[in-house]
Amino acid sequence: MVKKAIILAAGMGVRISDIVKDIPKSFIEIDGKTLIEHSIDKLIARGIEEIIIGTGHIDTAFEVLKSKYKCIKTVKNNAYADTSSMGTLALCLKECNDDALILESDLLYDSTGLDVLINSFEDNVMLVSGFTNSTDEVWIDQDDNNNLTYLSKDKATIKNLAGELVGITKLSKDFLNQMILKYNENIDVYKKKDYESVIAEVSSLNTDKYKKVKISKLDNYAWCEIDCKEHLSRAENIVYPKIKEKELSRKIKRNILLNPGPATTTDSVKYAQCCPDICPRELEFGKVMEWVSLELSDMAGGREHIETVLFGGSGTAADEVMISSCIPKNGRLLIINNGAYGARLAKIASVYNLDYTEYKSSTYEMININDVKDKLKSGGYTHLAMVYHETTTGLLNPAPEICRFAQEHNIVTMIDAVSAFAAVDINMIRDGFDFMTSTSNKNIQGMAGLGFVFCNRQSFEKIKDIPMNNYYLNLYDQYKSFKNTYQMRFTPPVQITYALHQAIIETKVETIAKRYERYAACWEILQQGVKDTGLKMLVKPEHQSKLITAIIEPKHKQYNFNEFHDKAMKIGFTIYPGKLSDADTFRIANIGDIYPEDMQRFVEFMKEYFKFLKGE
Amino acid sequence: MVKKAIILAAGMGVRISDIVKDIPKSFIEIDGKTLIEHSIDKLIARGIEEIIIGTGHIDTAFEVLKSKYKCIKTVKNNAYADTSSMGTLALCLKECNDDALILESDLLYDSTGLDVLINSFEDNVMLVSGFTNSTDEVWIDQDDNNNLTYLSKDKATIKNLAGELVGITKLSKDFLNQMILKYNENIDVYKKKDYESVIAEVSSLNTDKYKKVKISKLDNYAWCEIDCKEHLSRAENIVYPKIKEKELSRKIKRNILLNPGPATTTDSVKYAQCCPDICPRELEFGKVMEWVSLELSDMAGGREHIETVLFGGSGTAADEVMISSCIPKNGRLLIINNGAYGARLAKIASVYNLDYTEYKSSTYEMININDVKDKLKSGGYTHLAMVYHETTTGLLNPAPEICRFAQEHNIVTMIDAVSAFAAVDINMIRDGFDFMTSTSNKNIQGMAGLGFVFCNRQSFEKIKDIPMNNYYLNLYDQYKSFKNTYQMRFTPPVQITYALHQAIIETKVETIAKRYERYAACWEILQQGVKDTGLKMLVKPEHQSKLITAIIEPKHKQYNFNEFHDKAMKIGFTIYPGKLSDADTFRIANIGDIYPEDMQRFVEFMKEYFKFLKGE
Repeated sequence: MVKKAIILAAGMGVRISDIVKDIPKSFIEIDGKTLIEHSIDKLIARGIEEIIIGTGHIDTAFEVLKSKYKCIKTVKNNAYADTSSMGTLALCLKECNDDALILESDLLYDSTGLDVLINSFEDNVMLVSGFTNSTDEVWIDQDDNNNLTYLSKDKATIKNLAGELVGITKLSKDFLNQMILKYNENIDVYKKKDYESVIAEVSSLNTDKYKKVKISKLDNYAWCEIDCKEHLSRAENIVYPKIKEKELSRKIKRNILLNPGPATTTDSVKYAQCCPDICPRELEFGKVMEWVSLELSDMAGGREHIETVLFGGSGTAADEVMISSCIPKNGRLLIINNGAYGARLAKIASVYNLDYTEYKSSTYEMININDVKDKLKSGGYTHLAMVYHETTTGLLNPAPEICRFAQEHNIVTMIDAVSAFAAVDINMIRDGFDFMTSTSNKNIQGMAGLGFVFCNRQSFEKIKDIPMNNYYLNLYDQYKSFKNTYQMRFTPPVQITYALHQAIIETKVETIAKRYERYAACWEILQQGVKDTGLKMLVKPEHQSKLITAIIEPKHKQYNFNEFHDKAMKIGFTIYPGKLSDADTFRIANIGDIYPEDMQRFVEFMKEYFKFLKGE
Repeated sequence: MVKKAIILAAGMGVRISDIVKDIPKSFIEIDGKTLIEHSIDKLIARGIEEIIIGTGHIDTAFEVLKSKYKCIKTVKNNAYADTSSMGTLALCLKECNDDALILESDLLYDSTGLDVLINSFEDNVMLVSGFTNSTDEVWIDQDDNNNLTYLSKDKATIKNLAGELVGITKLSKDFLNQMILKYNENIDVYKKKDYESVIAEVSSLNTDKYKKVKISKLDNYAWCEIDCKEHLSRAENIVYPKIKEKELSRKIKRNILLNPGPATTTDSVKYAQCCPDICPRELEFGKVMEWVSLELSDMAGGREHIETVLFGGSGTAADEVMISSCIPKNGRLLIINNGAYGARLAKIASVYNLDYTEYKSSTYEMININDVKDKLKSGGYTHLAMVYHETTTGLLNPAPEICRFAQEHNIVTMIDAVSAFAAVDINMIRDGFDFMTSTSNKNIQGMAGLGFVFCNRQSFEKIKDIPMNNYYLNLYDQYKSFKNTYQMRFTPPVQITYALHQAIIETKVETIAKRYERYAACWEILQQGVKDTGLKMLVKPEHQSKLITAIIEPKHKQYNFNEFHDKAMKIGFTIYPGKLSDADTFRIANIGDIYPEDMQRFVEFMKEYFKFLKGE
């Protein structure tokens, strides 16, 4: 799994200086987006965790990228005017002791090229195309085994022509180290070489320290470099339309899920499931699970305090892990129940014959915090379980206030944050959560199949001696076993884990704060739409999560949820019935990869459907 | 989700009669495979469950396809010489009351075309290409909304040219019914029309009974029809290389997993995970789960006797479901333990404080059946649990003989068939299995994430009153809830279910019997290789499953499992350590999408690695 990419962007672009006077060459725009952003977006979509950009000429231009994409690091080549791309690459490699994709910055390309390199069985592969007639070709020479031997702008020097250099190459850590060794032998000479000639030089050495560079050729590859005005025109009129057609043909039908999860996902999260088969007991996969767990811990309060334990199963499975693993026989549990998910926690407690009390509260009004505090103070409870965000109603419970109070009274807190995590700002330490659950298929925008249990590391120690109440769903055993072996005790859903890896990369790019802003912007449109339609929300706006909205069903005889649902479905929206026994509602969630324009379109539809309410 | 395809293959191919004298036109071979098989393979890979071929001219040729692909149904148009393709389509539609892809039979095409139609948001879509200059074009006319209005071979009659007809169209059941209504209005006229003109005619009618046909255009689509010698040459020299390059560029890196599952999967199973987002509580998804369950039941003894209940989780989760849900408080359980998986059943029983006894038997020698029978007869047991195929050793336990005996003595039988199912010939009724478990990621060749519990429907009734011992893993509740609602109680792994759907389609194409033959052929190569290498298998060949082989580690000081593993990994093979406390072994599994040539290559590598055993 290649996790890093290096983009060489220090060059001055002398031949195209009339277009790119004040910007680096890679800031030329095609279809309203700079070349380098086209490239960055493709790399992120393909699972690249970190992008190192080697800058030089007008390096300040890259600052805006760095603040937009947290996964970008820039490395400045101060001597860019006197060095060539190898000088820049050598600086970048100081920040990258890993396999990497090496890309030129002024490319426009079909993402298939990345797929081919990433899926190649070879450690070192250079992407080569058929003939572009661009007049600026770098010609590739190969041996009989498709190994790169030599490259040149002078076609006459090529013996066995493979095709043209694209400017995208996958190289192993070993190979890159060898390039650096070469470079260090004579820096003054090598810093003035093109990076690609050094690749060719190292590939043609006879050694068994690393593998040679294989040529991967696509005769009909849609790509171009932009080095002059003619290139730009060719890019806009010929190459880009081809790329667009190819990328559109890979687009997966977009349904907009307004049900409260699983949520709408990006195509890149979907395609991340198409990973090479791997035995999940291999260390390589253990490292993926570890990365995922650490990143999730960061989102829950920081890896220094929080352990995230993964389970193959749903959010309810995670809840059952928590309830069944964290309470000793003599524990006394208070469960706050103000919706279907609070009731579910109580159901689980009942199945395990725990000593528990339900604190029932209105499904749509704010919990009486003082009353809960009184109960906690005087009830002899050792444990508290509650739902942070009631998925049934959209009511956001005051979990932090209650939990901080509980912790002060030595009560262990257990929070179902299934539909709160990765949208609501959570810090388990600050908020007083000892244990917390969530799942891969809600706000984190991954696929269903993994449940998470987050644990305050200090509280963790308290559960290690609790006897198992089940086997598959035992928290401490799962945790301890992963720590010891880098393996999940039982076969994990491998592909769902890769999708989650991708979803986390995308969450980090967006940031949870901005994601919540996007969700909230959708909600604002929804709540205005509900008003305009003549409908009413179940919960007062100030108590809502702005993630899921329960809307009271009208009594009008013309209203029929199934008809409403089916009509919405026909235009691509999935809506969801209520789940309360004491109020007839339907629910609209605004989580997942959806945008204000989607919600606007839904609201228009809703207004049209409900026009009978106004006698129209 | 389109599940059916109709291929129109009745035509006589008059213009190409010198090449196709004795065969239908669709039997022209490109790269050693007939056009129609290229097409069939692409349709199956894209999740099509049933292919209806309309035959006529030399219809006998299609018999071989029917016996090769169980998903094919043929419909003969006896009057093919006097009718055109609409006549054949009308006959096919009698067998297809569903949405369908309609394809011409003499096409060579890039599978992207299918992706685009299947992922289109439109119910009715016609694939249209840019200009091929084939001299045999059908030109497409569209209105301003990209709706098909008219088509013709006479370009002069086209007002608003969209492009060329490819001959692949997705049509809804409603639209197809409308075509049949038209056809029935005047059969004598309509049977002589081309199917595509009737599509255009129906699309241009003004009605709200169905939607018009949208044009989906790919300017650079690689495809051709073969109607004459020139077409054939163009297909071979220009079109096919392009298609091959495109399809290769979508290939996912192939690792060969020789660990005992998750097993190597096909790319089509991987890509099946890239489905449109869907709320798993929608009926459409319920129907997918139902189809999956019924097909699995068929593989376990028939849907009339067996219920398959799906759980989000691993094979161990399924085992825990079975052990924790099927034994009443007063039950007395005998567990046969002759390997790590038998021991795991006992571990689960211990966690739930069941009244159980372990019957321990050698990990590598056949169970003493008579001794077990004596135990069962005299021990007062109500339940028996055992592993069919011990994944730790490859030992195939005599589960049918033991279980039939147990059932005769009114003992309920529970079988872990995790690594036996879909390879070993199982019929739960014949074999005396009341409950049985397996998983999506072993011989069925799907992705990890779903556990199956198979239940003899009669035995099912016996468990409905057993109180829940856990919540997520309760069998009867999961079963009953799905029956009532078409929903899994808790969010299922949606994408894993679609992958399983695809894996089942592919298993049905191969058949379980042929799959076992393929696995066994790999095993024969392996066991010969083990001999040739100078190694020894743990279990006698006659007691082995031929699915997984435990090989005794040599005492030679030069042997190092990790080194062996890492070298195998470098050439694409994943191997796996043993799991026995009483013998040092490593394990080689030969399940999944692997072939004798893969095993041959592995054996060569193994012989090379172990040459020190022979003093070389």
